[in-house]
Amino acid sequence: MPVGTQGTVKTVGSEDIEGLGFEQVLSNTYHLSLRPGADLVEQLGGLHRFMSWNGAILTDSGGYQVMSLSNTRKIDDQGVTFRSHLDGSLHYLPPERSIEIQGQLGVDISMCLDECPPYPCTRDEAANAMRRTHLWAPRNLAVRRETQAVFGIVQGGVHEDLRRESAEFISSLPFDGVAIGGVSVGEPTEMQYPVVEFTAPLLPADKARYLMGVGHPKDILHGVASGIDMFDCVLPTRMARHHALYTLDGRVNIRAKRWADHNGPVDEGSVFPQTERYSAAYMRHLFVAGEALGARLATLHNLAFYARLMREIREAIEQGTWPELAARYAQA
Amino acid sequence: MPVGTQGTVKTVGSEDIEGLGFEQVLSNTYHLSLRPGADLVEQLGGLHRFMSWNGAILTDSGGYQVMSLSNTRKIDDQGVTFRSHLDGSLHYLPPERSIEIQGQLGVDISMCLDECPPYPCTRDEAANAMRRTHLWAPRNLAVRRETQAVFGIVQGGVHEDLRRESAEFISSLPFDGVAIGGVSVGEPTEMQYPVVEFTAPLLPADKARYLMGVGHPKDILHGVASGIDMFDCVLPTRMARHHALYTLDGRVNIRAKRWADHNGPVDEGSVFPQTERYSAAYMRHLFVAGEALGARLATLHNLAFYARLMREIREAIEQGTWPELAARYAQA
Repeated sequence: MPVGTQGTVKTVGSEDIEGLGFEQVLSNTYHLSLRPGADLVEQLGGLHRFMSWNGAILTDSGGYQVMSLSNTRKIDDQGVTFRSHLDGSLHYLPPERSIEIQGQLGVDISMCLDECPPYPCTRDEAANAMRRTHLWAPRNLAVRRETQAVFGIVQGGVHEDLRRESAEFISSLPFDGVAIGGVSVGEPTEMQYPVVEFTAPLLPADKARYLMGVGHPKDILHGVASGIDMFDCVLPTRMARHHALYTLDGRVNIRAKRWADHNGPVDEGSVFPQTERYSAAYMRHLFVAGEALGARLATLHNLAFYARLMREIREAIEQGTWPELAARYAQA
Repeated sequence: MPVGTQGTVKTVGSEDIEGLGFEQVLSNTYHLSLRPGADLVEQLGGLHRFMSWNGAILTDSGGYQVMSLSNTRKIDDQGVTFRSHLDGSLHYLPPERSIEIQGQLGVDISMCLDECPPYPCTRDEAANAMRRTHLWAPRNLAVRRETQAVFGIVQGGVHEDLRRESAEFISSLPFDGVAIGGVSVGEPTEMQYPVVEFTAPLLPADKARYLMGVGHPKDILHGVASGIDMFDCVLPTRMARHHALYTLDGRVNIRAKRWADHNGPVDEGSVFPQTERYSAAYMRHLFVAGEALGARLATLHNLAFYARLMREIREAIEQGTWPELAARYAQA
């Protein structure tokens, strides 16, 4: 899922996302509830109509943004109280309110409000965040609308026994899908991979498994190999705005001098319909000259790279050609 | 002509400009010669290939930007010496060099280097700028490449006798088209219109007549009625980035609160394929939230508005329905 935090995947329109072949985007309850407001979006016909997106939408619960963005927040077993990073206004967000907001937005998949412990954290902090996540899980489910699919979230930090306990508890509830949370929060790959490898197989095989906030192409390949079905990540769009383009040979800085007279594409193996008419030299010029089109073209390139990655992953699973696929993306 | 100062019409791609139906864009010799440099653009196959634009390109000579952008400049009968606004480097721009750079860019229409007097200016200043423009005119023509069309520029400020003298002299030279310069440089409409009305009929009827830097929809209508064929203006693109949308009822500030819950288009009479899927409420949200897509959608809207204006102007001339057209755009 491309990430459209404020109801827009930065620099591109819904027609672009459709053209790239994506079927679902992620948006943010925290941001949209503060601006333009869930009441207004509901009044205007819901988030699909608001952003003119005909595919599916998943929203996160707002819990993670409360922790990472708001200046003041207090969390207890009832819920989260926080001040808006926009205007300092005070907001109360219990699980019921998060699900209600996501219902107002009218999205296809709502994430339940959980507590994501900070990284690094102690075992006690990880255990407490898990305990509260479990306490809230049934409260999320209790208030959902009839048509509202809700995903549960497994916590437990890097601790196998906690992850097992959380996976078993969350899997026992009537969620429509299960996510692994608390991953890709700043920890190194050596810590992330074992958690994914250990936890994913513990999740129900007949429900979607979603690895939140992941990630690099190699992390996605690793996740799929571990049994994950769904991903979201800001990397392709954020990196694009920092003039970093994904290629089969790794990420390249298109603003670097070496591209100044490069009249072809950055990567012969990564030429996409959305950007093929533009040379690397032109894209570099746009960034050097501070032109907005640079971020747009880079975003289209990176999203096309990720769209192809996911398409080729599905094909490799169906055709049994996973080793060839892994080799193709080994340097990406 | 939409304006693509740095080889890009801000926020949109060449595929967008094509889709809007424009056949020609304007770009800037001053900017492109400083960055990325005329030698590089020539080496990469010329400006058409560089910006991947299959339509026509007209470049201005750089003279106007030298006056408005560079910190230090000296002008004499030989040419202009100036310091780059980017890095302070010293550059010498005689007419021959301006035409040479435009030849390197490989554009379809090169503008000759002229002297555009400041506004306001004395009669002596206007006369001196005209005299130097006339002195340079043959030097521009002398160095053009065989395939390089060059337009002359009429100066003379707001003075009828000077405009007549300039129009007669420039028209007597073998230019491929003739422009009216020194208009739309800050003067009020009451001063601009008489100059256009007086000067346009003095220009050759068998060559394109180009009114530089104009303008508002009503100024374009006035220009065409006076006998002008070509226009360029930054207004539709610049205003878009300042959240101002053109409508048949005038320009509206899409960031204003009144659009917050407006679920339809800004103007039922100005709905365009490029933006019709998005509501006024969504476009307002994009600007309020600081999202780059806002400037892009506003740019697409305004360019579509201008493309329609020019198309309807051509139709009204052919069909003899000018009064109806003028009435339709009376408030725009």
